[in-house]
Amino acid sequence: MSPFTGSTPRTDSWQHLTYVVDESGVATVTLARPEKLNALTFGAYADLRDLLAELSRTKSVRALVLTGEGRGFCSGGDVDEIIGATLSMDTAQILDFNRMTGQVVRAVREAPFPVIAAVHGVAAGAGAVLALAADFRVADPSARFAFLFTKVGLSGGDMGAAYLLPRVVGLGHATRLLMLGEAVRAPEAERIGLISELTDEGGADEAALALGRRLAEGPALAYAQTKALLTAELDMPLAGAIEMDAATQALLMHGEDYAEFHAAFTDKRSPKWQGR
Amino acid sequence: MSPFTGSTPRTDSWQHLTYVVDESGVATVTLARPEKLNALTFGAYADLRDLLAELSRTKSVRALVLTGEGRGFCSGGDVDEIIGATLSMDTAQILDFNRMTGQVVRAVREAPFPVIAAVHGVAAGAGAVLALAADFRVADPSARFAFLFTKVGLSGGDMGAAYLLPRVVGLGHATRLLMLGEAVRAPEAERIGLISELTDEGGADEAALALGRRLAEGPALAYAQTKALLTAELDMPLAGAIEMDAATQALLMHGEDYAEFHAAFTDKRSPKWQGR
Amino acid sequence: MSPFTGSTPRTDSWQHLTYVVDESGVATVTLARPEKLNALTFGAYADLRDLLAELSRTKSVRALVLTGEGRGFCSGGDVDEIIGATLSMDTAQILDFNRMTGQVVRAVREAPFPVIAAVHGVAAGAGAVLALAADFRVADPSARFAFLFTKVGLSGGDMGAAYLLPRVVGLGHATRLLMLGEAVRAPEAERIGLISELTDEGGADEAALALGRRLAEGPALAYAQTKALLTAELDMPLAGAIEMDAATQALLMHGEDYAEFHAAFTDKRSPKWQGR
Repeated sequence: MSPFTGSTPRTDSWQHLTYVVDESGVATVTLARPEKLNALTFGAYADLRDLLAELSRTKSVRALVLTGEGRGFCSGGDVDEIIGATLSMDTAQILDFNRMTGQVVRAVREAPFPVIAAVHGVAAGAGAVLALAADFRVADPSARFAFLFTKVGLSGGDMGAAYLLPRVVGLGHATRLLMLGEAVRAPEAERIGLISELTDEGGADEAALALGRRLAEGPALAYAQTKALLTAELDMPLAGAIEMDAATQALLMHGEDYAEFHAAFTDKRSPKWQGR
Repeated sequence: MSPFTGSTPRTDSWQHLTYVVDESGVATVTLARPEKLNALTFGAYADLRDLLAELSRTKSVRALVLTGEGRGFCSGGDVDEIIGATLSMDTAQILDFNRMTGQVVRAVREAPFPVIAAVHGVAAGAGAVLALAADFRVADPSARFAFLFTKVGLSGGDMGAAYLLPRVVGLGHATRLLMLGEAVRAPEAERIGLISELTDEGGADEAALALGRRLAEGPALAYAQTKALLTAELDMPLAGAIEMDAATQALLMHGEDYAEFHAAFTDKRSPKWQGR
Repeated sequence: MSPFTGSTPRTDSWQHLTYVVDESGVATVTLARPEKLNALTFGAYADLRDLLAELSRTKSVRALVLTGEGRGFCSGGDVDEIIGATLSMDTAQILDFNRMTGQVVRAVREAPFPVIAAVHGVAAGAGAVLALAADFRVADPSARFAFLFTKVGLSGGDMGAAYLLPRVVGLGHATRLLMLGEAVRAPEAERIGLISELTDEGGADEAALALGRRLAEGPALAYAQTKALLTAELDMPLAGAIEMDAATQALLMHGEDYAEFHAAFTDKRSPKWQGR
């Protein structure tokens, strides 16, 4: 339990997703509406936002795998429960909804642990952006990413997609994907840098879990700061980024894992990482 | 006619380029000095700047195709009419000229409709940057892009090229292309993300027009906002970008096209987009 | 000798690296501890920082090749002389060390001449970042880049790597490389844009020198400004970048090399570049 815990109660009962943590500190969040291709509901967004916020505070996990049950990863916002419902909302409500979806993406980017999307089948709309926001996209050959927002009359820049996608695949590909909303299949996704690791058919979940375990066994604070710097330095000038790197590295050089590396190297053994 | 029209007269007589609009709202701008490989003159730059500004105000087109007549797309600034002429200009005039060329690029990026460059043969110097500034580069196998500014003793960072190219192909490729000024042929251009769609030999114009028509039939406001967000969020931090996405999406969720999508989906028919 | 030379003495005796300049103005800096795979020491960092600062002031070179003697390019910070030594440093000393390493990267990026890393064998840790900071990475098939900082318990964002790498290869690849610290071999490095020119086995040094000579014979001021704009415009919004391009181009249009291009073109001869 973190010393920075206040009065807010926690829940162990997440109703809109499946959440488990294994003994190595790898959490798995499963979007579990397979009969709807894991279409997102208001509740699912809210649970993702709240769960990520809680995990970021309590430091109870060291890596998170995000996956989908059934035939695909996530088909995006539910046509009836979200698109239909938002049609009768007033301006303030609609803004609140869109801010909530954006908060999920911010929570993924700001979580102090690596987030791994395990993608098979369709990752569409908000599902594609969730995968995009993850640090790693482990995908099998059935994976297809479709930023299909314009196909429902909306902007391709949803939940930070117009910020993130050009920084992952370049402005040319990003423009094509966000404007046209067409599906990008696994081979092209790998070629343009949208997939971190391409697995055999049906192997995304297992490979994502293996990557999660490998990261969970590693120097957690070093990983957390690497992620934080990658996220922050997209928005910083070179001189500031270099200064931030220097301060971060100086901090970690007084940490236990750096000393442990040197001791292990000297003893010709593997380091035992503490994550601090 | 837009209600936001003032006293400034329009022209239908563009002397330095060919301009047509078809019934679907697709404009085609043709650089039409084939005997000079469509080398740009002061007048051509000024007409591109003014035409784009006018089209952006009047909303009379829904997509724009930029192409070149004859053997190539555009060989860049004319050696005599621009390079020769600028040699005898004073400091203020030279700055004015360079600002004008930059305004063309800004106008392309800020136009509220997609711009498609149809590239065959050479796209050199300012011609390469015009294509780079477009949202889509539809090119055939004869296309070659040459940012040849250093070969005339100038900076590779012309008309925003040093800003745009690293964001399209990455800093490594961009440095090589802008420093050395060598031609990049279609296969490499496609591999590094500089081409949006590679067509058969001689097929760039037709494919660009087809893409323009497809975009013109679509949800124009959704496309316009997608483009605006892609352009703006290159210059914004993540948190601001996500907030901007939320506000934009909230706006479009009160638009006609979003409601039309839902109605069409419910009726199992194709949406009839209004572009608002 | 630059007129902007003060009282600070120069040295011709660099003790921690090998430095030569050939008759064409191409400097070669060789990391020369082959028995340690050119592992960097405090002295090597300091000499790189000071040499680059001096060369940037005196304008005595027109291109710089950075290479390593023996089996590889550079294995990064020395395990004993740096990692071991930093373990007993206090906070201020550790920060000073990390700032110095960052200053080397800033010096590479801010040098007014192209820097070419000639990479064979391993480029690991700080060695990988030095290569990353260069304008060109000329590499042979034996080259492998390993941003292995997390493997020693540190942040992958070292010396600006978390700023530079996403801008060279995209955020997805950069996250994978910096988080996991695994070696990227030449074919993948070329595919993702990390290599500027892939040579035959053993050909990196010769190709890097050839590129250096080609650049040294070219319009030096045009190259310097191209590099300066590429570096600066990563941190600038589009409108400012376009204005900066316009002012830079206007400056160069009053330079000797632009006039020389036009004269040579008119005379049907090759330009004789002056670099001003």
